[in-house]
Amino acid sequence: MNAQAMLASSPLRRADRGGIAILTLDRPQARNALSEGLIGALTAELDAIAQDRDVKVVLLAANGPVFSAGHDLKEMTARRADPDRGRAYFADILERCSAMMKRIVRLPQPVIAAVEGIATAAGCQLVASCDLAVAGAEARFSTPGVHIGLFCSTPMVALSRNLAPKHAMEMLLLGEMVGAEAAARMGLVNRVAPAGAALDEALRMAEIIASKSAHTVRIGKRAFYEQSEMNLDEAYAHASHVMVENMLARDAEEGIGAFVEKRQPVWVGA
Amino acid sequence: MNAQAMLASSPLRRADRGGIAILTLDRPQARNALSEGLIGALTAELDAIAQDRDVKVVLLAANGPVFSAGHDLKEMTARRADPDRGRAYFADILERCSAMMKRIVRLPQPVIAAVEGIATAAGCQLVASCDLAVAGAEARFSTPGVHIGLFCSTPMVALSRNLAPKHAMEMLLLGEMVGAEAAARMGLVNRVAPAGAALDEALRMAEIIASKSAHTVRIGKRAFYEQSEMNLDEAYAHASHVMVENMLARDAEEGIGAFVEKRQPVWVGA
Amino acid sequence: MNAQAMLASSPLRRADRGGIAILTLDRPQARNALSEGLIGALTAELDAIAQDRDVKVVLLAANGPVFSAGHDLKEMTARRADPDRGRAYFADILERCSAMMKRIVRLPQPVIAAVEGIATAAGCQLVASCDLAVAGAEARFSTPGVHIGLFCSTPMVALSRNLAPKHAMEMLLLGEMVGAEAAARMGLVNRVAPAGAALDEALRMAEIIASKSAHTVRIGKRAFYEQSEMNLDEAYAHASHVMVENMLARDAEEGIGAFVEKRQPVWVGA
Repeated sequence: MNAQAMLASSPLRRADRGGIAILTLDRPQARNALSEGLIGALTAELDAIAQDRDVKVVLLAANGPVFSAGHDLKEMTARRADPDRGRAYFADILERCSAMMKRIVRLPQPVIAAVEGIATAAGCQLVASCDLAVAGAEARFSTPGVHIGLFCSTPMVALSRNLAPKHAMEMLLLGEMVGAEAAARMGLVNRVAPAGAALDEALRMAEIIASKSAHTVRIGKRAFYEQSEMNLDEAYAHASHVMVENMLARDAEEGIGAFVEKRQPVWVGA
Repeated sequence: MNAQAMLASSPLRRADRGGIAILTLDRPQARNALSEGLIGALTAELDAIAQDRDVKVVLLAANGPVFSAGHDLKEMTARRADPDRGRAYFADILERCSAMMKRIVRLPQPVIAAVEGIATAAGCQLVASCDLAVAGAEARFSTPGVHIGLFCSTPMVALSRNLAPKHAMEMLLLGEMVGAEAAARMGLVNRVAPAGAALDEALRMAEIIASKSAHTVRIGKRAFYEQSEMNLDEAYAHASHVMVENMLARDAEEGIGAFVEKRQPVWVGA
Repeated sequence: MNAQAMLASSPLRRADRGGIAILTLDRPQARNALSEGLIGALTAELDAIAQDRDVKVVLLAANGPVFSAGHDLKEMTARRADPDRGRAYFADILERCSAMMKRIVRLPQPVIAAVEGIATAAGCQLVASCDLAVAGAEARFSTPGVHIGLFCSTPMVALSRNLAPKHAMEMLLLGEMVGAEAAARMGLVNRVAPAGAALDEALRMAEIIASKSAHTVRIGKRAFYEQSEMNLDEAYAHASHVMVENMLARDAEEGIGAFVEKRQPVWVGA
């Protein structure tokens, strides 16, 4: 296979512009199912981006009418022929998928999902796992595992940390499609853009974030998830500690100075 | 007392149809207050249903203009004459009531509240404790304990796990009635049906759930509440484990097979 | 300085009426920034109120077009000249500010914010830390630290305990202004009043609370935050214990008696 063919066959495309890395799921023929290959490609790109100080925000988009249909059932079903009926494989692929979802949460840079079309099962989990999300007006979401006897248990982890319990339960137990406006009301996405304009709106949000001190954004995102698992006393102790360090960093000195002097700050990213 | 008289005097009616057990609070003359008798009857039915593999979903409805007015204050007040001023009795009845609420959460089958009229105090807690809830358009909710000097502290446990803190605090501190639409916005109920049609709408939801693999639904409901008390790493580890077992169960094999072959699945419930 | 001049120079005014203590941030020329002086004054008043059995509810309002702009950046920036570049000072002021916010949460009496104008950074945190909040229609909220390289990490603690994660993240990462209606939808405030009428509406809520048994309200508020950090079993055990004690207190006996006898209760506050 030559390089161009390899590129063409990659299930994930990346394009960078001005500090924004746009990752596009690109298996439209397979409804952007999270195959081994796509999970691996996402993991590799997220690991690369985590080390890449030129990237300030990540957008997650998809090519084709389906944002992502979740796990690749064909790939999984094939392993039922394994001597252990697939047990080891299923455990491994779920572990890899969960690790990828947690990589999004723990990535230094914020990740914004731009969703057109349908996002189901682990595809819906992918949206819930992002820090922010924009839905096109015709986007739809569901966790339809119950229809095929396979409860969306791992998607539930992300879903139930974003939605009120009865809303999450309704999606999980009924498996029905939820429209963009309802998803926004429930907290699954931040904003609804006109159909087809989710990426544009997500880019606008990304550009705002990219104009900030990357160091500051990094500090903040990390502290957000850390303190969310602490009680009030621990959370305040941790956040205060983080804020003192932030205050002593160069970008805060620059930013506060620029604010006082009514000029634009020039970030050094430290 | 003959059997018919006993039946007539029971504070709880049960009717089963097609895998759906409909429990109806039936003390309309006492505003369906959660007396010792009614708490006991609910506990007994829930325990029976937990073992009953023919029941796939439970509906909780009420007879009369009041869904439930909460604890039976007459019954409680009478025990102020006890040598300990009722302390042991109050502790016992609250323990029994809390245990009943937790039985709903831990019941293998999903429970859907269908609420017409008013649900107050422990009656409101009963709605909050269900997995899903439908309100008729004229249903109203409140935790009015502050009006009588008795803060709705146990209802608060269920309420504060469903609503945003300021919404829960407002209900608890002001004790005001909240309409069906506001209850839906706050996450206390999932849907608002036309007045008088809450049960019909709840039945529609129940029928969808009853058409799924009972084994899968059971696995999912249990995992939902288990993982909700874990941190992100623990939650993913647990959910992944649950999903591997689910994948290896017969209903998932059947469901995924049927999906691939574009036919209706036939569940065996295992 | 004579007493009147001291009073005039205080950054915080207090006025009591009928069991309601109204605290008014009164540094309009400094956008009601939470200076050392204002944090100290708030702390002192909250400590006094905690011991004052005549106070049943606290209102938190502000004088001028800005509710509060958060920390006093001038005061903080001046300490960059310290030998340690301000580290010890920043740690101390953040510790004092966090302690003040937690005092609101742990104050026996409920605290209601009445917000007109803009509430930003620690000013927004102040609103989030109150038990209830009313916004005038033109009030606006933001956590704009990212604009100056200083992530709103301590405001985040209060914000993320009130809003859905994606809503909190959006405010923190973009630093954009959020209007009163959006703040209400997201759970940051309970109600939106006409512009200029936030205090009136907050007073109406305060009067309702002040008409209840202060003992009962105290018990309830405390239990609310205690149980919110427990798992379901612990929460029910704690809430049941609290409710038994509440039931045996004089105000519950009076309140339930009055309810049964259809008369107004006369609280003794115990």
